[in-house]
Amino acid sequence: MNNERTPRMGLAACTQAGDPELAKLVREQGAVEVWEHLRSGKGSTSLARRAQLLDVSAIEDQTKDCGARFIIPGDAEWPQSLQDLSWSEPVGGMGGEPLGLWVIGPTMLSELSAGVAVVGSRASTSYGEYVASQWAGGLAEQGCAVISGGAYGIDASAHRGALSAEGVSVAVMAGGLQHYYPPGNSALIERIAHKGAVISEHPPVVPPSRARFLVRNRLIAALATTTLIVEGALRSGAQNTVSWALSMQRLVMAVPGPVTSAMSVTPHRLIHQGQATLVSSVDEVLAGMKPINADIADFTRTQPTLFDSLTDHQKHVFEALPARLGKSIDELVQVTGDNVMNLQVCLTGLLAMGLVKQTDTGRWLAIPQARNPDSSLLGVSHPQPPF
Amino acid sequence: MNNERTPRMGLAACTQAGDPELAKLVREQGAVEVWEHLRSGKGSTSLARRAQLLDVSAIEDQTKDCGARFIIPGDAEWPQSLQDLSWSEPVGGMGGEPLGLWVIGPTMLSELSAGVAVVGSRASTSYGEYVASQWAGGLAEQGCAVISGGAYGIDASAHRGALSAEGVSVAVMAGGLQHYYPPGNSALIERIAHKGAVISEHPPVVPPSRARFLVRNRLIAALATTTLIVEGALRSGAQNTVSWALSMQRLVMAVPGPVTSAMSVTPHRLIHQGQATLVSSVDEVLAGMKPINADIADFTRTQPTLFDSLTDHQKHVFEALPARLGKSIDELVQVTGDNVMNLQVCLTGLLAMGLVKQTDTGRWLAIPQARNPDSSLLGVSHPQPPF
Repeated sequence: MNNERTPRMGLAACTQAGDPELAKLVREQGAVEVWEHLRSGKGSTSLARRAQLLDVSAIEDQTKDCGARFIIPGDAEWPQSLQDLSWSEPVGGMGGEPLGLWVIGPTMLSELSAGVAVVGSRASTSYGEYVASQWAGGLAEQGCAVISGGAYGIDASAHRGALSAEGVSVAVMAGGLQHYYPPGNSALIERIAHKGAVISEHPPVVPPSRARFLVRNRLIAALATTTLIVEGALRSGAQNTVSWALSMQRLVMAVPGPVTSAMSVTPHRLIHQGQATLVSSVDEVLAGMKPINADIADFTRTQPTLFDSLTDHQKHVFEALPARLGKSIDELVQVTGDNVMNLQVCLTGLLAMGLVKQTDTGRWLAIPQARNPDSSLLGVSHPQPPF
Repeated sequence: MNNERTPRMGLAACTQAGDPELAKLVREQGAVEVWEHLRSGKGSTSLARRAQLLDVSAIEDQTKDCGARFIIPGDAEWPQSLQDLSWSEPVGGMGGEPLGLWVIGPTMLSELSAGVAVVGSRASTSYGEYVASQWAGGLAEQGCAVISGGAYGIDASAHRGALSAEGVSVAVMAGGLQHYYPPGNSALIERIAHKGAVISEHPPVVPPSRARFLVRNRLIAALATTTLIVEGALRSGAQNTVSWALSMQRLVMAVPGPVTSAMSVTPHRLIHQGQATLVSSVDEVLAGMKPINADIADFTRTQPTLFDSLTDHQKHVFEALPARLGKSIDELVQVTGDNVMNLQVCLTGLLAMGLVKQTDTGRWLAIPQARNPDSSLLGVSHPQPPF
């Protein structure tokens, strides 16, 4: 029995979800210590008062009543992918790994190895709904879990497509699991709960709110290896999910549509700006999910001596590089403690070996090797959370 | 009076257009010498026999009869952009600057400074035709010449859009100008001839052929600074025009469409593979046509001392780099006569200054500076034809 379960449930009930400072405090000091401190009566903050008044057993009862389980980091079911929230940049001041998750449904979250977040507008077009439903079905048939938010429009089409292919779907709620939101989709979300999983980081009775929708989106992006945006108007909530995905160096793909459709404005902008890859079929989604540089991984298999020849300095610099978004020379100076000139010489060598590349804006990236098990000749893995 | 006019007209009448070897011979030895040699009776090839039998004055009469003028390199009207065909890679074994052009219409080809090639399927959808027509009109209103092939479908829609905006349109024919092809578009092509220009590299009586369509596409791509593909099925002639544009390091842009449309397969593939930029409005086309790295050009304006600090060696390597497609290290070794190590050190320096970049496949590119007149601080210009 994990002794953090009650503290984490209590903290989740007393605090606003998606507070990166609290997540950091819990990670560094442990949930037990943070909770005990609040409950000890020493603190006089409103948070401490809430903690002291809280009846955790009532939340445990609500959890049972709605048929949910409460899982926390360290549990076998805890999805490792959520750890990326510990190091990713906050989005709109929010972020951090959730304290725990309430889950209803037979799907084990730890097994979502190839999850695709399918997101888009509530005010979708029939074109977008068709693509969301068909592709979600195709992805589910190929063993991908389809993760979305249970909303009207693209979300609902994606869930339905996955369910109709007898696949796994996961709905991440912005409120607690006592009442599914939106009410008009409650029958659909019930079906997801029977076949896949419906999850929330909030205690069962918490209603959804605007802020909870935004932090909910980080869980959708974090649980999936790839975020696929099907439709989105100029100002679209789907953009928020994309920002979370990019902050965690996840793949983002976008479905094009007619340039005459207001609902394709956000996918087109993401593709135009290089933030998302255009995909025009399920096969392209699946192909894009493979290790990004499979050809280079092949190369490493056949030419191990090249990698054996890396100096310790080169390995050190390579380990400091992320696989997406990249680091500037200044950031690398900070992380490695090296000077600019040494770094540039080292990066040129790595560049010539095809191990790193540079973005148009001059940021340096590692070319990922780690996801291909045979390419572990390097002895280092990417992407690496910095802890 | 340019003394190459008769030789070039004669050579154009005796040979197949788009022969890169002949173009090279004429460039190196001069049209007069090549033509005199063929006519001298010394050669016994079928080409020499054709040249000896040819009555050039008959072609001059045909040219007058159809109201055309025959322009050649060195004429004030000759478009400089065609010079890029002298150094670009052949496509399907074809290429080279045309020997001359027959032109009907008031537009001076030398003034097509901001031409956009709008290309796509003949079997276009109403969506594609709508976009082609609307955007061509929008581009024409902004002073861009709309260049296309006069074919059914996207070509015709683009020409019509430009004409209806009272703009300049140029139709490049795959056969001579005595009969416009296709016959069903002859009224449209007549209108283009009255308001813009209809052009061909073939004598007036030559009929179109499959090979002539392919070499015609190189002229469309060469005359335009940007090629915009609106629609194209899996196997599309528009792909050929795109290949020519890429061979000349021209910008290629593509219009997305529904993934359910077979006519958007080629635009989507080009975007997915990074060969074309997705554009979703006329404004994005216009913005993309601006100097590619305007921000860096701005930077060079404000920081001239950085560029003054380039060594002669760095300038030499920078001049050897193309602005698109790039050169491999091996190719740079050949071009510069430098060794790999020196080149890498030099390229790192240029990279750090934001003057060069590297493609995913490891090829090196110059970041263009030359098209912005204020950025001539470098004293070198890109893209440079290698002669």
